[in-house]
Amino acid sequence: MYLPSSTHPLYFKWSWRYIFTSVFSMRHFFVLSLALNVSFILRSVFEREQGLNWFGFESEKDQVTQRTRLSVSSPLSSITTLAEAQDSGERIINLDHGDPTMYEKYWQQMGDKTTVVIPGWQYMSYFSDISNICWFLEPEFAKQVVRLHKVVGNAVTDGRHIVVGTGSSQLYLAALFALAPSDASEPISVVSQAPYYSSYPSMTDCLKSGLYKWAGEAHNFSKEGPYIELVTSPNNPDGTARHSVVNRNKGTLLHDLAYYWPQYTPISSPADHELMLFTVSKSTGHAGMRIGWAIVKDKEVAKRMTKFVELNTIGVSKDSQIRAAKVLKAISDTYEHVDDSEVGETFFDFSYHNMAERWKLLREAVEHSGMFSLPKFPPAFCTFFNQVSEPQPAFAWLKCEKDIEDCETFLRDHKILTRGGKHFGVGPKYVRISMLDRDENFIRFVKRLSTIRV
Amino acid sequence: MYLPSSTHPLYFKWSWRYIFTSVFSMRHFFVLSLALNVSFILRSVFEREQGLNWFGFESEKDQVTQRTRLSVSSPLSSITTLAEAQDSGERIINLDHGDPTMYEKYWQQMGDKTTVVIPGWQYMSYFSDISNICWFLEPEFAKQVVRLHKVVGNAVTDGRHIVVGTGSSQLYLAALFALAPSDASEPISVVSQAPYYSSYPSMTDCLKSGLYKWAGEAHNFSKEGPYIELVTSPNNPDGTARHSVVNRNKGTLLHDLAYYWPQYTPISSPADHELMLFTVSKSTGHAGMRIGWAIVKDKEVAKRMTKFVELNTIGVSKDSQIRAAKVLKAISDTYEHVDDSEVGETFFDFSYHNMAERWKLLREAVEHSGMFSLPKFPPAFCTFFNQVSEPQPAFAWLKCEKDIEDCETFLRDHKILTRGGKHFGVGPKYVRISMLDRDENFIRFVKRLSTIRV
Repeated sequence: MYLPSSTHPLYFKWSWRYIFTSVFSMRHFFVLSLALNVSFILRSVFEREQGLNWFGFESEKDQVTQRTRLSVSSPLSSITTLAEAQDSGERIINLDHGDPTMYEKYWQQMGDKTTVVIPGWQYMSYFSDISNICWFLEPEFAKQVVRLHKVVGNAVTDGRHIVVGTGSSQLYLAALFALAPSDASEPISVVSQAPYYSSYPSMTDCLKSGLYKWAGEAHNFSKEGPYIELVTSPNNPDGTARHSVVNRNKGTLLHDLAYYWPQYTPISSPADHELMLFTVSKSTGHAGMRIGWAIVKDKEVAKRMTKFVELNTIGVSKDSQIRAAKVLKAISDTYEHVDDSEVGETFFDFSYHNMAERWKLLREAVEHSGMFSLPKFPPAFCTFFNQVSEPQPAFAWLKCEKDIEDCETFLRDHKILTRGGKHFGVGPKYVRISMLDRDENFIRFVKRLSTIRV
Repeated sequence: MYLPSSTHPLYFKWSWRYIFTSVFSMRHFFVLSLALNVSFILRSVFEREQGLNWFGFESEKDQVTQRTRLSVSSPLSSITTLAEAQDSGERIINLDHGDPTMYEKYWQQMGDKTTVVIPGWQYMSYFSDISNICWFLEPEFAKQVVRLHKVVGNAVTDGRHIVVGTGSSQLYLAALFALAPSDASEPISVVSQAPYYSSYPSMTDCLKSGLYKWAGEAHNFSKEGPYIELVTSPNNPDGTARHSVVNRNKGTLLHDLAYYWPQYTPISSPADHELMLFTVSKSTGHAGMRIGWAIVKDKEVAKRMTKFVELNTIGVSKDSQIRAAKVLKAISDTYEHVDDSEVGETFFDFSYHNMAERWKLLREAVEHSGMFSLPKFPPAFCTFFNQVSEPQPAFAWLKCEKDIEDCETFLRDHKILTRGGKHFGVGPKYVRISMLDRDENFIRFVKRLSTIRV
């Protein structure tokens, strides 16, 4: 197996360190550490005696395999102990948002490598590079964006324009502004294949713009004339690889590639579309930075997108651009061996491995419960990992089976907050569940899910 | 005089340091320092012998006063030496934007006090405080905003909601979204007394929103029904104190108080309006952070503004909020003597003094040229400085006299870039000129302006 196993010493060490620092103050670290280690050993012995698996439920099959896995001290199974002790089924588990806090653990592991220090007198001007179309784009950030895409091989950047935005949300709106004809008699239609990202309709229509208008499911779009088709691939919420479906003249494509990174999906080739959106929120996990970028072929489109960001927020936080540059650089450095010091685990190995573990746990929980189903994804060759791998999306697109019509309400009754299918343009039998939360919350979730019966 | 004089040792020292570090690389610092000091002394002797004033032109009156001022080594006069040596009248002087780089000097002076250090694993979540209506507002930033308003006495914050934005630009749009009726048959009119901030019309209309529409000069507004009146006070571009002028029923007021700080205008009392906008760009000079805040009376309005920022950019950079908090804290600390270490010059003393010097220089240049005129502002009592003082706006609203009809073009012919009156809803005889640029650029500007003849 290419990826480091769950018994990798760093992985184990950091799982524990993460739990401790997130739950307890440092003052109590050593006392709690001792107590929890004792409790973990006792619990482990107890579980083996009882024949229970990771989640404390009796497995319907593979009981031997499960117990074996427990005995090799999977990092997630050690977390389970803590989660189990705390979860009485009463605590609300909120997986409605795709808050990527799973990644905190990796960046803690990297220590000072991505620490930024900004003196009070730096980056005060509105301007970053007045020779660039995108005059508020920090050159170092642009450089690291291009470099990371070359390292990963997931997007063509040569001869393209980079436009930075306050998250890719702002760039989605900037793209609509740039692509919509400014002199049309009616707003251009914006369509996307359902299920589509739940925020797109409200973002598009919130100001009742005369330039563009949400027109819903792309398959149902039959209006003549120009349109914008939004293609999110891998798709939010369901993780599938997507292509345009309207295939008519006068259509302009807008590609949201927020999840086109090796931890979520096999990288097949460098994406090469007219206008592509990316964000640090999903690539590195730094949602709080609010930094996204667009890779744009057409110069005039890049100019108009820049104009939108100027009219909307007069540029983008320089502090966050500088910090994002440092984070992207750290990732590329580990792959290009720029840094001679001990690198530790590489970012995409860590995140791929975590996602693989989580999807395994989720599928086991779903199987154990018998109340739900999940999409299946075809394996494909990943040019980055140089192996065949399976998609493991940032969201689980869970379907309630049996007679449950409203999956969101059903799960809410079990104090699990998710986002129902109707927000994504489909029926209420589906919900979207974040796979990117902190270990503790994710484990509590799969444990509770596995025990759900009618 | 309450304010420190221009001979204040810190002020002198930092003026020099700023020029050196901005123009030359550190490698050549000492050699250049020596050379420039010699050149400065020689120049100073030369000027006294020639009977020239700061700008190298013969003063029409007060020649003795001017020479006296020179002899006390005004920091700006020392800068003039450098500017004069470099300005052949060919270099473009761009004062079109209000880029507040004047403030860099102060924050350099503060050294490490406002340096932020952010480890790679911090502030990764989208969320800052889910118990707050504005869930992406960093509590420390909110705390320091309230504290600074109490220190300065320029806004009521008790019982109000704070909404953070990506600059106050985003909050202007958020306010329109929040104040516009969502179910109206036509967009609500947005009016403002001319001259008004040049970006407001294009920001308001750029998406052709069905919710709100720019309706121009407030004095000409006669339409029945609801409207939003935008009151910018002190006003951008002309620096005047403003009040609403429409005074009809069904009007909602939106106050842009970006310049209601003691360096620009006497603080008469804590502003107490329904919805007030502020920004670090103009208060502390940190435009590159893109951080603004709204102080909002009505809970539902705060909720809707938060919703807008959520749909627009899913929150606001945490890195910049943290950095802004540190900067605001440093200012309040110097006034509340929290820090026992040597404080140096306080922020508002520094900035008030700089603006006073600049306005003096500008008025002298205008008088010397005889081609222009400037508004006059009535003195008023400032509760912050506890003395009577005059407004000294962040922009000069310059009028071309004589037969010059298009002031922007006229100045552009002298390679001075400004923003013409037509952008602000008035005639082309006026231009707006930034007073917040770096010393070197500002001095070059006043010098060149003073020599302009027909």
